[in-house]
Amino acid sequence: MDHLPSWNDGPAKSAIEKFVRAATDAAGPGFVPEDERIATFDQDGTMWVEHPTLTQLAFALARVFALAPENPKWQNEEPFKSILARDKAAIAKFTMQDLEAIVMATHAGMATGDFHAVVSDWITNARDPRWNRPYTELVYQPMLELMQYLRSNGFKVYIVTGGGQAFVRTFAQRVYDIPPQRIIGSAAKTSYSYAEEGRGVLVKQPAMLFFDDTAAKAEDIYLFLGRRPHAAFGNSDGDRQMLEYTHGNSGATLAMLVLHDDAEREYAYGPANGLPGVKLSPFSQTTFDEATAKGWPVISMKNDWKRIFAFEP
Amino acid sequence: MDHLPSWNDGPAKSAIEKFVRAATDAAGPGFVPEDERIATFDQDGTMWVEHPTLTQLAFALARVFALAPENPKWQNEEPFKSILARDKAAIAKFTMQDLEAIVMATHAGMATGDFHAVVSDWITNARDPRWNRPYTELVYQPMLELMQYLRSNGFKVYIVTGGGQAFVRTFAQRVYDIPPQRIIGSAAKTSYSYAEEGRGVLVKQPAMLFFDDTAAKAEDIYLFLGRRPHAAFGNSDGDRQMLEYTHGNSGATLAMLVLHDDAEREYAYGPANGLPGVKLSPFSQTTFDEATAKGWPVISMKNDWKRIFAFEP
Repeated sequence: MDHLPSWNDGPAKSAIEKFVRAATDAAGPGFVPEDERIATFDQDGTMWVEHPTLTQLAFALARVFALAPENPKWQNEEPFKSILARDKAAIAKFTMQDLEAIVMATHAGMATGDFHAVVSDWITNARDPRWNRPYTELVYQPMLELMQYLRSNGFKVYIVTGGGQAFVRTFAQRVYDIPPQRIIGSAAKTSYSYAEEGRGVLVKQPAMLFFDDTAAKAEDIYLFLGRRPHAAFGNSDGDRQMLEYTHGNSGATLAMLVLHDDAEREYAYGPANGLPGVKLSPFSQTTFDEATAKGWPVISMKNDWKRIFAFEP
Repeated sequence: MDHLPSWNDGPAKSAIEKFVRAATDAAGPGFVPEDERIATFDQDGTMWVEHPTLTQLAFALARVFALAPENPKWQNEEPFKSILARDKAAIAKFTMQDLEAIVMATHAGMATGDFHAVVSDWITNARDPRWNRPYTELVYQPMLELMQYLRSNGFKVYIVTGGGQAFVRTFAQRVYDIPPQRIIGSAAKTSYSYAEEGRGVLVKQPAMLFFDDTAAKAEDIYLFLGRRPHAAFGNSDGDRQMLEYTHGNSGATLAMLVLHDDAEREYAYGPANGLPGVKLSPFSQTTFDEATAKGWPVISMKNDWKRIFAFEP
């Protein structure tokens, strides 16, 4: 039985199968006891489309419009002014500081349950402009098969994302079959307080607890799990340390990078591709060279994936 | 079959059994789907002896002696000076700030793997002075049975402790049958760096990420799990918000407090008992009154527990 039917035969698929055989072969040198089988996946660009706009940024921009009537000063205040003017050129140049300001203004000040409801509503109804489908249908079918293949071999599968973990947790069970406690991501502070009838609630604060990218991915994996993964999957410089940390484990390990090299079926960017955009954490030549030096297989979307989305014929 | 053989028949045991029946009765109003069955346990004073010295403080004090030769200035610097002089009266008066200084000085500056090795060595060899046994034998047998009873009914069991999560994770699998990713506790920052041959390692920093007590217990449960528990167990004011947060869930809930009222078999302190000590988070009359008002059963160690430790005849 082929557990990876959307993958073409080739070096990427072989590397995955070889790793799983090594990790589960109780007589071999790479054997990993079942309770130590941890696999971590980046989300944006690794599990679903991130170009030209990160999905959570699309959500935040929609929230700016929804909240603008309550915030008249935004008409004259950047970065909100550019958003409300639909100035795509300015939006494409937003820095990490701009994004943080937008996220703080649109994600904070409400109870965690209310935020969950707002995200659930948006993610159900919003449509990606290119494919005119919900963003959650723009998940890569080969990566879903990979998650399931690892799970069926005793792995616990986690998302480790620079995106907000409260955002991702609203749909991760349905889309990835991953429960909320296995989503590690950027997190805002919350503050415990009392709602009606003395019920304890948590209110999201306009302050970050941590931004889960680059070195913080390794640090937060340790914070949440207390162990190194044996497999990790990313697509950018923001995933380097997570892959290194995984590569440094004993027993079988697998570290892979998704390369966006399919301009026709999806997009082409990263080393050797010059597509501009809002990509905040690029796949640079440095990371590509590290992957080559350390033997991390690079997944070519163009060559390794038979199909990219489940909705393809 | 009696799943709770170390519990006397009485209101505490009945409350536990009634809760489990309600949570698992698919036809009843309290039913909780299996993936939402989360139970959280405080550690110090709830799972094991905390009096007169928190176990992690005993570890930190031992580390001060071990590290003193490398830190000659400690001879004249509080709180280290009092520790090295074995001044028990001064140690008993240590504030939270003193404790933090001791923890930072003894827990930081080493790679996470090295810290794990140091704790594992100490926890194996150190002995509690009253019982002359490893601290990990001073775990309450009735609470271990309760954890197992909940697990056998589909609950995921977590520790949520003011103690350090890296400390507790070194022995939690062996002692509680709880894997490291289900230990939530106070956490120091770590910093990603490179060891020999470019291997990525995390180094513990002398700075707290969060101190997991009082409101932070509810906040950190949300941070790690993204859901409210259905059952929570504590023994002090530091557990109030965790119990309130659990009590505020829909479906069946259970919030319980362990009362240390057995001066003979263990210790007696808390409301109506005046034992002094280093207890930093007391079980105050206010929390006792809240428990009464909200119907949270209080566990009397004297009346509800047939035996306290597994080593009792």
